[in-house]
Amino acid sequence: MTKTYLDMSMSLDGFVTDPDASSQTPSEDPGRLHDWMFARQTPADTEMVAERYARTGAVVIGRCMFDVGFKPWGDPPPFRGLPVFIVTHDPKPAIPMKGGTVYTFVNGIDAALTRAKEAAGERDVGVWGGADLAMQYLDAGLLDEMELHLAPIALGGGKRLFDRKRPSPIELTCTRTISTPAATHLRFRFTRA
Amino acid sequence: MTKTYLDMSMSLDGFVTDPDASSQTPSEDPGRLHDWMFARQTPADTEMVAERYARTGAVVIGRCMFDVGFKPWGDPPPFRGLPVFIVTHDPKPAIPMKGGTVYTFVNGIDAALTRAKEAAGERDVGVWGGADLAMQYLDAGLLDEMELHLAPIALGGGKRLFDRKRPSPIELTCTRTISTPAATHLRFRFTRA
Repeated sequence: MTKTYLDMSMSLDGFVTDPDASSQTPSEDPGRLHDWMFARQTPADTEMVAERYARTGAVVIGRCMFDVGFKPWGDPPPFRGLPVFIVTHDPKPAIPMKGGTVYTFVNGIDAALTRAKEAAGERDVGVWGGADLAMQYLDAGLLDEMELHLAPIALGGGKRLFDRKRPSPIELTCTRTISTPAATHLRFRFTRA
Repeated sequence: MTKTYLDMSMSLDGFVTDPDASSQTPSEDPGRLHDWMFARQTPADTEMVAERYARTGAVVIGRCMFDVGFKPWGDPPPFRGLPVFIVTHDPKPAIPMKGGTVYTFVNGIDAALTRAKEAAGERDVGVWGGADLAMQYLDAGLLDEMELHLAPIALGGGKRLFDRKRPSPIELTCTRTISTPAATHLRFRFTRA
């Protein structure tokens, strides 16, 4: 059965972007939050990335993340051929990329998830960011799991993952912990009431 | 050599108090953040508490935490005889409690840490909260370690541990991870430049 999981790298102080990141001025480097995938990747981190791609049949991201990432990701983009659904209020025609990935624009989180599940087959759907989209899926109760990569740094600024008040607590269960120098990889299952 | 460590229980969304906690209206229950010490304590959590007391020679807390805790903690308080130094701008005479703990009021984080280190002997000094005091010690670069007990819940409100912007990132190294049903216990060492 297909699961929908959120996958985010977050600092200890709760930020998911570097202080200077925005769609207007994207960071020049991949950022300290993602050291575990780049500058300080260990074999355990590499395995984490491989596992993520192996489980995933389709990816959903937000429009802001797409706008920030489109150019630096390049062509072929680093999605290893997976279909990517971009949630936006202003859909435009799909963009086929080298390597097999197609960027498809969909209006609304429900419609995007439906499309992604169709495309994923037996595999899982990964919500890979950014923070706004993540919180929309969280608030809608559409997530089954969360993969949180906790970077051992207090950034002091940026965009928070959990930036709003919510009316009632959300319960999770930690089902796996893997610690590497650049991240503590935490897997959570959302507890349904 | 005496270490100064911060010890906090925090939700996944970064809160260290329940949404309704304040010095005026303390929560009636110990709160979901501390389930690992109360309602859902497992042997591994019990060991964590025992280890914390074994390493600690003196405790430093903030005035707000003291005001909230004084009555519910009772007499004897749950400090197992450890001396407790309360940072306040308005010191008052020390309060000896049953069981050996003395509440001593000290003006300023440096003075409180000096007094606590004298009292701790060879053992460590624990900064046990609240969030304001924790951030003061963090900003002053006076912490050697952080014990973060990450509760698998998004509270949706309360007081944030990391509530302010800071000029530059703070680097840490995760040195231990222990996962129990009610908390992921993370130990960090602060990386000195």
